[in-house]
Amino acid sequence: MEKIRKILLSDEEMPRQWYNIQADMPNKPLPPLNPATREPIGPEALAPVFPMELIKQEVSQERYIEIPDEVRDLYITYRPSPIFRAVNLEKALGTKSKIYYKYEGGNYSGSHKANTAIAQAYYNKKEGVLRMTTETGAGQWGSAMSFACHHFGLELLVFMVRVSYDSKPGRKILMNAYNAKVVPSPSTMTAAGRQILEMDPDSPGSLGIAISEAMEIAVQDPYTKYSLGSVLNHVILHQTIIGEEALLQMEKSGDYPDVVIGCFGGGSNFSGIAFPFLRENLVNGRKTRLLTVEPSSCPKLTKGKFMYDFGDSAGMTPLLPMYTLGHNFIPAGIHAGGLRYHGAGVLVSQLLKDGFIEAKAKMQRECFEGGILFARNEGILPAPESTYAIAGALDEARKADIEGVSRTILFNLSGHGHLDISAYEKYFENNLPDHELTEAEVEQALSKIDFPD
Amino acid sequence: MEKIRKILLSDEEMPRQWYNIQADMPNKPLPPLNPATREPIGPEALAPVFPMELIKQEVSQERYIEIPDEVRDLYITYRPSPIFRAVNLEKALGTKSKIYYKYEGGNYSGSHKANTAIAQAYYNKKEGVLRMTTETGAGQWGSAMSFACHHFGLELLVFMVRVSYDSKPGRKILMNAYNAKVVPSPSTMTAAGRQILEMDPDSPGSLGIAISEAMEIAVQDPYTKYSLGSVLNHVILHQTIIGEEALLQMEKSGDYPDVVIGCFGGGSNFSGIAFPFLRENLVNGRKTRLLTVEPSSCPKLTKGKFMYDFGDSAGMTPLLPMYTLGHNFIPAGIHAGGLRYHGAGVLVSQLLKDGFIEAKAKMQRECFEGGILFARNEGILPAPESTYAIAGALDEARKADIEGVSRTILFNLSGHGHLDISAYEKYFENNLPDHELTEAEVEQALSKIDFPD
Repeated sequence: MEKIRKILLSDEEMPRQWYNIQADMPNKPLPPLNPATREPIGPEALAPVFPMELIKQEVSQERYIEIPDEVRDLYITYRPSPIFRAVNLEKALGTKSKIYYKYEGGNYSGSHKANTAIAQAYYNKKEGVLRMTTETGAGQWGSAMSFACHHFGLELLVFMVRVSYDSKPGRKILMNAYNAKVVPSPSTMTAAGRQILEMDPDSPGSLGIAISEAMEIAVQDPYTKYSLGSVLNHVILHQTIIGEEALLQMEKSGDYPDVVIGCFGGGSNFSGIAFPFLRENLVNGRKTRLLTVEPSSCPKLTKGKFMYDFGDSAGMTPLLPMYTLGHNFIPAGIHAGGLRYHGAGVLVSQLLKDGFIEAKAKMQRECFEGGILFARNEGILPAPESTYAIAGALDEARKADIEGVSRTILFNLSGHGHLDISAYEKYFENNLPDHELTEAEVEQALSKIDFPD
Repeated sequence: MEKIRKILLSDEEMPRQWYNIQADMPNKPLPPLNPATREPIGPEALAPVFPMELIKQEVSQERYIEIPDEVRDLYITYRPSPIFRAVNLEKALGTKSKIYYKYEGGNYSGSHKANTAIAQAYYNKKEGVLRMTTETGAGQWGSAMSFACHHFGLELLVFMVRVSYDSKPGRKILMNAYNAKVVPSPSTMTAAGRQILEMDPDSPGSLGIAISEAMEIAVQDPYTKYSLGSVLNHVILHQTIIGEEALLQMEKSGDYPDVVIGCFGGGSNFSGIAFPFLRENLVNGRKTRLLTVEPSSCPKLTKGKFMYDFGDSAGMTPLLPMYTLGHNFIPAGIHAGGLRYHGAGVLVSQLLKDGFIEAKAKMQRECFEGGILFARNEGILPAPESTYAIAGALDEARKADIEGVSRTILFNLSGHGHLDISAYEKYFENNLPDHELTEAEVEQALSKIDFPD
């Protein structure tokens, strides 16, 4: 046991605050706009959808926000999460670099999504909300939210993107086990869903559509609120506990990461691990590269356009300044359902535009190959989403070896793949198509945006 | 946070030795017999099947056996495992008792089976073995062994009981992901399998049949050995790390268990948590009750007969003194596939006969109800096997409340249910039949034993 394999924190070391990158951003994000007037909207416009405490967090400029005791009480059942050094993977690669991963799959939901689900359910309950609605892609977010809502005594209705609903039936059952109701999206329950089904009865759905449906239900009743699993500032805020822990753990390891990597859907798991390291760059002059890996089939960061767009398909959200492929873009049905989102969160978009973070896109087959290599060496079968982070880490290690240097690489293993087994089955059947969105297809997708600019 | 929710050990506190109950048993188990001569057999008879180090452990009378560094190196990636106090479950029950659970599902395999898989693969590799065969029921053992074999550079062929192979396809894919070959049992690869298929082409299979098939392949080649996931003394030895950790953790909690509970298939997860507490009873005069919970459809401990019987269906093993329903008994296809075994390990059998442990049987629907209650309150969705331990714990808490006392209850949550989702689907569809073996059916099963007594 010469090498450190595992770096733990004690319960007492679990961070007591979330970190708000807005306090340290050189260029603050542009304001959300009212779609009709194109005027900046204030936080009050979000009140029909979110509880006030989350709206405050959404726009807060405070650097640190206290984690409430009731949230810590549940966090402590699975946090602090471990960091592992991937010694066997390093050996298999023959790399000179050090590869560390933060493992967020060790909780009831199997992914990092519990971190914000618990916080969101708590704040909603505190403000008298009775029922919640939400969307889910692959189902990690939906299952995290299902237990969190049940724990705090809230009902939950989940709109699950149809392609995932059909290919990952286990996730639906898990949500049912936690007492949530799950509906495939697009559904006939909402005007937004019916409109999509009229155009395409076989629509695979998208996170954008599912968000529209969940919001439509929420705004009809004052005791029902909506909850989003990524993208928004307050969601990303809650995920920063990952990076705050990782900073403490890397300190214990005696190493400091040259690069921090996360997969990218709306931005929450990447931002969660990366933003505390970005603070170290901005405030303490450290120089860690922050790398997001997105699917080539949904490349908003690498091929999308930075512009105002809706966060959902039907255009119910305010206009947000973000990298986007167009809010009515429907990505190919890759197995990393959590990465099938047309846009990027406002904070990540601004930071990417300003050059503080990097982005690359990968094909799903190569990512699954990396996932299998990882599983055979490190034991844990990764969620399809997490395989993008793994593929990014493998690229970095190989690049360093070509350059003849040793780097310290840290990535976020955001979840396990025990509920995504069907995707691995397809991989072994050699039935995992690659999709790469061309520039022309991106142009076409953006041209479909149905509001005047 | 008034109550302790989680009790952890540091890496340094991970036990360095396994505990061998044979050293402390008042009545030593009867010897295994040669089926032909009915004479006691020596350890050398096992040499075609197992490596020498494991055979030595099988018959050792040493109280403690050192855990090799190579095994510790992998243990440390997921051990020490946490103990949780089920505060939310306690609240839901309104019980005065304290309920603790040791969670063994937090590793790559999702269950306690990793503890012996790693040890067995290590010893086989060390003695020059190239290939392994094994059986698996629900697949927890098979997946644990798949990664362990790959880690130590061994090939693995897994015979998976057909009813589980068909109902839990995810487990097969997970084993494939770790590079193992998986065959449904009974298969046409072996004489044992072909014989069963001739009698019943639709045979659901059983652990006993799968063991016969795996042994038949192993004995044909000196570089291929067989590996068993429960029942045997050395397997139970490796699992005692669970109870050794639990002892240290309960000490930290300030409580000491009045009762320790595990579900029962062949005996390894129950014995793993219970035997160190039994040592405390035997050596230090403590008085913890040790309770196993088995399925009513496979009630060898509560309705079976203590006698010499084969460990496998085809009669390839030595005759072992155990509680059994007859080695050719095929249990009903309940979802807790890991509990579908006709016999009980020799150590547990002797200890039950001598009154040191207790056994009860439960129906699967009640166990799943307990599993759902547990998941909604504690978050973790339990493996179907583990729901039997939960149901046992719920019984104990309710009984204590009726008696007006508060007891400390500890059970082994042996695995998570993320790969057993189809069983929960059946539960929600109200399609989970109960089976209770009657005394007459037990008589009939025992009458089918095909060797003279």
